[in-house]
Amino acid sequence: MSKTSLQPPRGTRDFYPDDYRQREWLFGHFRRVAHRFAFEEVDAPMVEHAELFTRKAGEEIVDQLYHFELHDRHLALRPEMTPSIARMVIARAGGLRMPLRWFTITQNWRYERMTRGRKREHFQWNMDIWGEPGVAAEAELVGALFEALDALGLARGDARLRVNSRALLEESLRRSVLRQRPEVFEPLCVVIDKIDKIGAEAVVELLVDPTGPVRLESAQARDVVDMLRITSLDDAARHLPDDSPALADLRRFFELLEAYDVRDRVVFDASVVRGLAYYTGIVFEAFDSAGTLRSICGGGRYDRLAQTLGARPIPAVGFGFGDMVIAELLSDKGLLPDLPRVVDDVLFPFGEAERPSAIRLARRLRERDHRVEIVLGNAKLKRVMADADRLGAARIWLLGPDEVSRGVAKVRDLASGEESEETL
Amino acid sequence: MSKTSLQPPRGTRDFYPDDYRQREWLFGHFRRVAHRFAFEEVDAPMVEHAELFTRKAGEEIVDQLYHFELHDRHLALRPEMTPSIARMVIARAGGLRMPLRWFTITQNWRYERMTRGRKREHFQWNMDIWGEPGVAAEAELVGALFEALDALGLARGDARLRVNSRALLEESLRRSVLRQRPEVFEPLCVVIDKIDKIGAEAVVELLVDPTGPVRLESAQARDVVDMLRITSLDDAARHLPDDSPALADLRRFFELLEAYDVRDRVVFDASVVRGLAYYTGIVFEAFDSAGTLRSICGGGRYDRLAQTLGARPIPAVGFGFGDMVIAELLSDKGLLPDLPRVVDDVLFPFGEAERPSAIRLARRLRERDHRVEIVLGNAKLKRVMADADRLGAARIWLLGPDEVSRGVAKVRDLASGEESEETL
Repeated sequence: MSKTSLQPPRGTRDFYPDDYRQREWLFGHFRRVAHRFAFEEVDAPMVEHAELFTRKAGEEIVDQLYHFELHDRHLALRPEMTPSIARMVIARAGGLRMPLRWFTITQNWRYERMTRGRKREHFQWNMDIWGEPGVAAEAELVGALFEALDALGLARGDARLRVNSRALLEESLRRSVLRQRPEVFEPLCVVIDKIDKIGAEAVVELLVDPTGPVRLESAQARDVVDMLRITSLDDAARHLPDDSPALADLRRFFELLEAYDVRDRVVFDASVVRGLAYYTGIVFEAFDSAGTLRSICGGGRYDRLAQTLGARPIPAVGFGFGDMVIAELLSDKGLLPDLPRVVDDVLFPFGEAERPSAIRLARRLRERDHRVEIVLGNAKLKRVMADADRLGAARIWLLGPDEVSRGVAKVRDLASGEESEETL
Repeated sequence: MSKTSLQPPRGTRDFYPDDYRQREWLFGHFRRVAHRFAFEEVDAPMVEHAELFTRKAGEEIVDQLYHFELHDRHLALRPEMTPSIARMVIARAGGLRMPLRWFTITQNWRYERMTRGRKREHFQWNMDIWGEPGVAAEAELVGALFEALDALGLARGDARLRVNSRALLEESLRRSVLRQRPEVFEPLCVVIDKIDKIGAEAVVELLVDPTGPVRLESAQARDVVDMLRITSLDDAARHLPDDSPALADLRRFFELLEAYDVRDRVVFDASVVRGLAYYTGIVFEAFDSAGTLRSICGGGRYDRLAQTLGARPIPAVGFGFGDMVIAELLSDKGLLPDLPRVVDDVLFPFGEAERPSAIRLARRLRERDHRVEIVLGNAKLKRVMADADRLGAARIWLLGPDEVSRGVAKVRDLASGEESEETL
């Protein structure tokens, strides 16, 4: 066995008990919020037909697919959950009560260079509403994600949501760039999404690149990039027809956020378009207010995904909330708890003759839902006591030959040090 | 998009809300038992270096590996959890308090022909104790697995455990078959394991096959197969030296099972050897008493696995308990529950003007940990009422223009039909 093989593959994580408790603490918050919003949990296989994920829009996520051929099938580890959810909804669209509210907490895979807060696998909490075209759905999701941030202990100002609408951008460009070539909208969004990372000039270059998928004229590209600088709805309105449905939706969305009491934590930002090609309407991303980390979570409306997969249109909106960036933010703020192991009772039979009595006692305590550890080998009392203390057990039960012959055990409360005798 | 891609890959499962609730019900029982036995949950990546799983013992599990090359790395989806656990233990062996008790509930993958109760992925509950050489560890694990069977609602007689010891078999063969060729023991066990499936004659053929890994003489092979028919420890003793440690261990193990109150549910059966090459000591498999299904769970001692992976020896024992066979058994017995969705409150704003009031009410109810569904679109009262009934909601809140203008909502208890007015 080579040394490498004793490590998990590069970019993947082992979860030792401490790590696992922390992970479940986080997932527990996700689940609790999801349940409060009456979402139901679902799951799909981590391995899917690669075809479900391969799209032609130049997205990073497609280039980074873990994919392989096996017995003439082209398979892939899912890089994100939404296509699997879409597949499941479409397969039973006739029998599902809409709108449906589903959530998942799943591991996703991307083969990529690693940077801070990014590995080759991550877990993601997804919340999706299918079958509702109105922005009440977007607002409900944003309400849920802020409730999760609050539940995790973040202060009101620690994170903020940047919101835009692809429909708004599309309407703005319909009279110019998209008039003759509406098909460039998806790849255009994929390029625009890189602006925070590569800057405006590089985005212009990609937009005009004659070998790229968008191929704008230089002036058009500059107009697009200028438009991304808009940070108020009123400014955005100037590029739009008076009866713009996208603008009306956004205004209504912001109104509803007042009722969720999160309006002050949300800003309009025309540069947010999201890197996935399938979004069609409102899109949003949450960031730490200090701006030092990648996005905490992001999502939006993707009304055309069902069609892309060959089904009739079904409106849909959702978000994905990864486990890595939030853990960094919580850790920076001192909010990531170190969770100790929980053991109620340690049972110590002094010798093998006392073991059956210890086992019978364990059965009784376990029936009462106690967490019971029986000392398994031949240990010294001193080491057992030290161990029980260290692992934070509540009580230790000592079963020596004398006690067992009298049908009792000595119990020591490890917090108070008090000792008593209990009948076995 | 082709039609195939709208189905999950062959042999894999989607978990819709009903399926997911059932799965979590099962996993909840596994977790509760594991916690009562003071085991800690851990996890490892589903993708590992293929080398971790490839062994030279002719095991089915290795032939059925989902493996692939990616950027010059040979990776595989785990077919079982034990090697990952071993890797994790070895990597931190110095810093871990032994004996350690770890459990996992993970999805594992095997590319194979499908039969009843077997798909290409399954979930498995693993319980492992590392660092304890004595049979108190085996007994504790068997105690836990019966506690799980009981918790799931099975009657005492519904399942039974068949127990053997590879050490016993090894001792029996040490003076004959293994004297000159001790290395054939592992492949010999892999062959013997097939006896229930292919019959004694076919096993003899494999054992003598001159191109196979074992290559016994015909008489030797018949002796081995005869030995597998033994079903009492006293009969087994006749093939063993008087001071056989394996026999002493087995006798002690059965004694301890008395204390766990499961002795009557366990039988000695020399034909049980388990299909994995790494077992060294006591091995066991649980079956439904009717004998119609594959094994429910199985495990045993594997003291040499750490060495195989290049580390110093660490004694270890564990079991794996799949989610598929137990589900079939529970279903056959009518014990697999249909778990309904749980919603406490449905909130129905009659129009968009009332929606902000509904959202504010939802916030208050969710703070009290209620599961609250806000009707998102423009629905008819009749349909909303029927839906709320169908999904089993406890209450429906009606927010009409009249109510909202008076600062109240009408609440109907859907079980009793009683209506009242509550202040918003």
